[in-house]
This record gives sequence, structure tokens and C-alpha cells, in this order.
Amino acid sequence: MTQQDAELDREGRRPGEDRTDNSDDGAGAMPVRAVEDLLEAGDFPRLAALLADEHPSDVAHILEQLGGEQRTELIDLLRPSFDGEVLAYLPGELREEVIGQLEPKELAAAMAELDTDDAVDVIQDMEEEDQAAILANLPPETRALVEEGLTFPEYSAGRLMSREFVSVPMFWTVGKLLDYLRAAAVSGSDEVPEQFYDIFIVDPRHKVAGTVPLSRVLRAKRGVKLNEILHEDIHRIPATMDQEEVARLFRKYGLVSAPVVDGGGRLLGVITVDDVVDVIEEEAEADLLALGGVEEGDLYRAVLDTTKSRFRWLFINLITAIVASVVIGLFEATIEQVVALAVLMPIVASMGGNAGTQTLTVAVRALATRELSEANALRVVGKEVLVGTANGVLFAVIAGLTAFAWFQDPLIGVVIAAAMVINLVCAGLFGALIPLGLNRLGIDPAVSSAVFLTTVTDVVGFLAFLGLATLILF
Amino acid sequence: MTQQDAELDREGRRPGEDRTDNSDDGAGAMPVRAVEDLLEAGDFPRLAALLADEHPSDVAHILEQLGGEQRTELIDLLRPSFDGEVLAYLPGELREEVIGQLEPKELAAAMAELDTDDAVDVIQDMEEEDQAAILANLPPETRALVEEGLTFPEYSAGRLMSREFVSVPMFWTVGKLLDYLRAAAVSGSDEVPEQFYDIFIVDPRHKVAGTVPLSRVLRAKRGVKLNEILHEDIHRIPATMDQEEVARLFRKYGLVSAPVVDGGGRLLGVITVDDVVDVIEEEAEADLLALGGVEEGDLYRAVLDTTKSRFRWLFINLITAIVASVVIGLFEATIEQVVALAVLMPIVASMGGNAGTQTLTVAVRALATRELSEANALRVVGKEVLVGTANGVLFAVIAGLTAFAWFQDPLIGVVIAAAMVINLVCAGLFGALIPLGLNRLGIDPAVSSAVFLTTVTDVVGFLAFLGLATLILF
Repeated sequence: MTQQDAELDREGRRPGEDRTDNSDDGAGAMPVRAVEDLLEAGDFPRLAALLADEHPSDVAHILEQLGGEQRTELIDLLRPSFDGEVLAYLPGELREEVIGQLEPKELAAAMAELDTDDAVDVIQDMEEEDQAAILANLPPETRALVEEGLTFPEYSAGRLMSREFVSVPMFWTVGKLLDYLRAAAVSGSDEVPEQFYDIFIVDPRHKVAGTVPLSRVLRAKRGVKLNEILHEDIHRIPATMDQEEVARLFRKYGLVSAPVVDGGGRLLGVITVDDVVDVIEEEAEADLLALGGVEEGDLYRAVLDTTKSRFRWLFINLITAIVASVVIGLFEATIEQVVALAVLMPIVASMGGNAGTQTLTVAVRALATRELSEANALRVVGKEVLVGTANGVLFAVIAGLTAFAWFQDPLIGVVIAAAMVINLVCAGLFGALIPLGLNRLGIDPAVSSAVFLTTVTDVVGFLAFLGLATLILF
Repeated sequence: MTQQDAELDREGRRPGEDRTDNSDDGAGAMPVRAVEDLLEAGDFPRLAALLADEHPSDVAHILEQLGGEQRTELIDLLRPSFDGEVLAYLPGELREEVIGQLEPKELAAAMAELDTDDAVDVIQDMEEEDQAAILANLPPETRALVEEGLTFPEYSAGRLMSREFVSVPMFWTVGKLLDYLRAAAVSGSDEVPEQFYDIFIVDPRHKVAGTVPLSRVLRAKRGVKLNEILHEDIHRIPATMDQEEVARLFRKYGLVSAPVVDGGGRLLGVITVDDVVDVIEEEAEADLLALGGVEEGDLYRAVLDTTKSRFRWLFINLITAIVASVVIGLFEATIEQVVALAVLMPIVASMGGNAGTQTLTVAVRALATRELSEANALRVVGKEVLVGTANGVLFAVIAGLTAFAWFQDPLIGVVIAAAMVINLVCAGLFGALIPLGLNRLGIDPAVSSAVFLTTVTDVVGFLAFLGLATLILF
């Protein structure tokens, strides 16, 4: 709820200002070019004044778009009163960059404005030393909540949840609840957060008995007891549940908010769907980047860091490519006699690689969404083999005729056709088996499937083509 | 809000039942195997009874996991009283399958239970004939709303929005609002939906003046006027805005719900974040699948359909591979003299392909999230060229030494080293330029970038390696 809160707070401070209207196109009100120009002109007071009016999300967007040096300059300019909300909107890599540039005191001041879940989110990626420095500078109450949040495992519901919620005893009536909320608003008590969607009903041991959505409170008469209108059939999320699992649950059941509980079922916090939106996007992005062989945050890394992180993946690929070359090397004598083979051989390997990647992509995605599971694994593998066979036969005919027409040798056409069928069947089989196998071993299939697959389709492609050529042509 | 509503309705019908508890693991309560067994045993009455107790999302999950024939059997079993909510949870391909199997009357009965946004979502993908048949069987009021929903462009906010919302005049007080909501609850009027998160405040011409979150209503005294506590600084979403843009807006500003307005700013409906969750997941999935060369719904297609849809992509790749072969063919004479070249040549092309894919993946993703834009395009291209150069030099040394050691010829090492630098620089340059260029032309870079890139890295890889060999070795 924290981002929404942030916006509400800002709106509260500046009522009547209609910053976004019908023509809202999702871009920040202030173009990046304008910021660049002001930075170059050195007109810092004007820039600071303009940025103070921007939504923290827009400031984050501007920081993303700037080049490294100008970003450093802008952070320096914002340092004295850095808005903590901006940190919450920045992607991980950039957030670290900003954190590294702020003094612990400045950072603690920025963090004090954040809700606990955002503060935990920001602080968890920092070095232990830095964490201690920040924590020491936080107000005691916030500090206790943040420290408690950090005790939950990384990527767990406990890290994701907000500690700001409204919980009341089951025997209360709607009238008593309304009076309580109104009194809290008047006294400015921070027992009641700015924004919430459900009232959590707890029993005397603070176990969650159920929830009452606000729209249901509003429709009920004052005399109605909360335990008459509560939902008992709710999804209680254990604090240790992995955030990916949390996201799946929210998506599966169309949840808007859900209570987070400890092992004894006691209420610890609340997760709302907007926290989950970030998780969903991050998980989908992680799969996409992993399949492409890059790490998260790549876009914001400096040249040297990017080179290093990509080097690893390319190095593994080099080994794969050398393995394929060794296979080709086995057939030097054959190639020496029929050079046409050297001309045609990449075709079979390339088609296998592409067909395998199709299968792999579908399988990795379906594993991530749980659409592919033990229950239908065999069926999916069987289907992939059939699709591989069907396309193998089709491309065998096309490639065979093309090779025949090109080199005027029917036997070369037969060789490429046979190799094509073999490689596309293997591509389908291993494109499905590799991610399924890695997944069962507890290894993220998105990260490592592609290397294994390319090795298979390259080796099988060259081996089948050159091997069959050696057998058939001589 | 519709999925949440669905859940609430169900919960309303079966109060006190705690289907999911602390051990909730996101999987359906009923294992797919059990369904398969009952289908095989022909114990249909028992199966129907068991499935009637499942959440629609779980029934959808079971349908996903079953094989084609058993799915048909199960749909037949569910037909007489098919739960419309199940349709809302099914992925597109499967939904079409189910729709195709139901009679128009059965389908209309199922659809009548749905909220308008879900009904529009389900009906929009159908043939016009089928649409007309369904619409004719819907209750008149629902029908009018669905027909109106269909007038908005596909993938627009208008299709996504729910028509169920609460809007009241600005001069109302909190007390009057509470009385209105309570009276509506008593009379069972469908003016007030089961679930809502904001009260929309409209002026006499039904233009949105602002919103009041429910948590704010609850904290205010009865005498407070709504126009004293409303947020004016809200995001009004034009009904024609693309759903991807809507999702970006929600994510960027951490919105929970937003009003959808017509050209004159008049309130048409409301979009809530849980509708957006689906859009976010779909868009990320679409990019991932497109980069892998497969179409959406691939997992659920029959062998023949899958073969056909993948054939297209593979055919384009065959042409690319043949172009690369033609390049190799130019150097037949060179290869005939030094067969080692045939052995080594796939290495340079493969490394280029992989390095290019790294750049491409980052660029496609960053374009989708708008992190990459005109403002920083030049900087990103420049960085990619530098990274390509750096890794090019590193792999030139490694590959050069390997080739030298393998074939005992320093010149072959020089050739592969030089070709490696050239191809990795090209991979970085074109890996960034191709998606940027396609994006500017209004073509989805996720769909078509990879083919262009592979063509470049293959052609440049073989041309540089074999061309340099011809120049240097002879």
C-alpha cells in the first residue's frame, strides 16, 4: 500500500493541484531533456525547485534516463533532502548507486519517511555495515519494525508485507469500529494507517478470524456485529512463503489483500495486490532476461560491470561452440572431399537450435506459471516430439530439395533431409526434457536450460549431418 | 474487481467454510490425478459433486492440466451448469475450446453470472455469429452494457473497465453517503456493487471531480462534506487508452483503482489493480514468447496447430540459415585448401549470435518498460558497442590462443581473433539498433528483432572469418 500512501500523502499536501489530466500519457511531467539542459547550464536552484514538484516515481524515471555522470550530479543536488519514496521506485541497481552516494544520516532521514515494507525492501540489499549505520539513525519504533522485517527470509511474504493495518476484536459492532477509526483520525494516532482495504478481525490470541472489506462495513448498520459480516474463508499467508508463491496465490484467486500470519496463525501484517504487481513483473522479467543470458540491472551497469557479467555467459557458450567444433573436426576428411558439406552444415544445427528454443520457451514459461507440472509433463513431452517430427519432415523436404538443386547431388539432399528430421526430433525432446529435469533438481530452468539445449542441438546437428554424409556419400 | 467479487459471492453462499488454511500452497484442493481417475472410472456424479465445491480458478487449473480428450469429457460433464467464472480464469486458447463446446444457451446462462468486464473479455474473442447468439440470450440490461463495452477498441481501457462503481454528487456529506449505501444494501439495489474501493465524486454533468478512498470515508465524521476530503489529483484514464499504457500508469504510480472517462471527462467505469495484474503478466509473457519464436496459447494447441504456427518462424530461420550458407559458399575454394576453417567457423557466428541476443534481450525489455527511450537511446547504443568491443577483445585472445594450440598455426589464431572482435562489435551495435529501429517504425521489437539480428551475426561472422582467412592465409 505504500506507493499509494505516498501519493495520497503528497496529494494531501497539495490539494487542488491537478497534475495529471485526461491527456495523462504515463510520462513524467518534466521531460528528461529539460533536466539535462538545466544540469548543463548549472541552474541548480531552478532544477531543485522543479523536481520538488514531481511525483517520486517521475524523479526515479528521470534518474533512470540520465547518463552516469549527470545522474551523480543530480543525486548530489537532491541529497540534502532526498525523498525516500524515490528509492522505492528505483530499480535495484540504481537504488544501490544512490544509496552509495548518500551519507548514512541523509539516508536515514530519507528512509524515516518510508513505510516499513518499503524501508525493509530498500535496506535488505545493503552491506551489513551500512545497514547498521542506517538503523542507528532511524526513530526507535521504525527501527524495531524494520529489524523485525529483516528477520524473515529474503523474498518471503514477511519481507513483502506491510505492518500498517487495522485489526479489531470480533465482538465489536460496526458502530464501535466507526467510532474507533474516527477517534484515531482526530487524535492523529498512528494505530490506523492512511490507507487500508480490509478490517482484520482477530480473536483474543490475535489469531485472524476473518476479514471485513471496507465496502461491506460501509453498507452495514451501526448495530451489526463484525463477526456477522466477516469472511472466514480467506487466504492466510504464512510469513515464510516465497514471494513468487504469494504472487501466484493473488493472481489465481484475484485477491486484493491478504493477512500474513506466523506459525500460530497470529496476524503479523498485510500484503496488498499493488505490492504483488511488482513481484509479478520482476519474476516475468527475471525469466526473460535469464533466457537471453543477461543479469538483472544490466541496463544500468557501467561498461566494465556489464562486460564482466555478460562474459560468464559468453564463456560457457564458447565452450559449447568448441565442443561443436570438435565434432566437426572428427569429419575433416569427409569435408575435405566434399566441401559442399561445410557450406550446408550450419543449416541443420541452426534449425535445431531454433526449434529447440521454441519448445524451451514454452516449457520454461509454463513451469513458471505452473501450467506445466508433473501431471501433464509426459503429455507435453510427447506433443513436443510429435511437433518436432512433423516440422522435421516438412523441413527435411524443403532443405533436401534446396540442397539437391544447389549442388546437383541427390545424395546430399538425402543427407540433409535425414539429419534435419533427427535434429528437430531431438530439439523437441530435449527442449522439453531439459527444463523439466532442471526444475525437478530445483535449478531455475530459465537460467541454464539454453546452454544445455544448444549443446545438444549443435552436437546432434553436426554429428547427424556429417556422420550420415560419411556413411552415405562414400 | 470481478475476480474478487466472484470469490466474495461464493464465500457469501458458503459462509463458514474454510477451504484454504495456513497450509495453502496455491494448488487446487483437488489433485488433477483424482479427476483423471474419476473420469476413467466413469464416476461422473461423484466428480460433478466434487468439482461443484472447487473454486472456479481451481476448476480452470484442472482443465488446463488435462489432456485433450479428457478435457472434452469434463467440459461435457460440466455443461449443464457451467460456471461462467471458470471462463474468466482460463487462458485464451482453452477458453475458445470450451466456448466452442457449449451451446449458445448454455454459454449465455454461464455468462449472465459474470460482471460486465469479464463478459466483454470472454465475448470479444468470439466469431461475430457466436457473439450475436450469446447476446440474444443475455438479460437485456447486461446485454446493453456488454454491447457498449464492445464498442471500445480492443485492448483498450474501455474493454478492461468494470461498470460497477459508486458515484455520488460532490455536495453530499459522509452521513448521507453512509445512509445511501446502507439503504441500497437493504433494498438489494444493484446500484451499489458488492465490492468497491473508492467513492467517485461527480459534478452535475457526471464529470469526475475526484475520489474518496473508503478508508478516508470511514475515518470522517458524518457531517463532513465529501468535497472536503476528496482527492482531486487523480489519474483519469481515457477509455481509448491502450491497456499496456494503463498497466504502466498503475505500476508507475502504485495505483489501486482509477476512473475511466470519456472524451468529455465523464465517468464511464473503473479499473482496479487486479484487472491490471493480468495485463502485466500477459504483456511480459507476450514478449518472452515472441523472443522465443512462439505464439501465445502454444501449450494448449493440438499437435497440428502447433506445428503450423511454429513452422512460420522456422521457415524464416531457414531462409536466414541459407543466406549464411550462401556466404560460406563464396569461400568454397578457401575451405577446400584449409579444412580447419570449416571446423572453426561456427564459433565466431555462434558467439556473435549469443552476444547479440544479450543486447537484444536487454533492449527489448527496456523498450517495453519505457526505461529505454529516445532520451537515452544513443547512450545505450554507445555502451553496447563498448561492451561488444571489450568482450570481443577478451574472446579474441581466448579463441585465438585455442585455435593456435589446436591447429598449430598462428595465422589461424589471428584470423579467428580478428573475426571475433568484428562480430561482437556488430552484435552489440545491431543488438541495440534493430529493436530501437523497429520500435520507431511501430513494429513490436519482441516479435521480429531476433531474425534480423541472427542474419547479421551469421553473415558478418562467416564473412569476417572466411574473408580474413582468404586475405591472410594465402
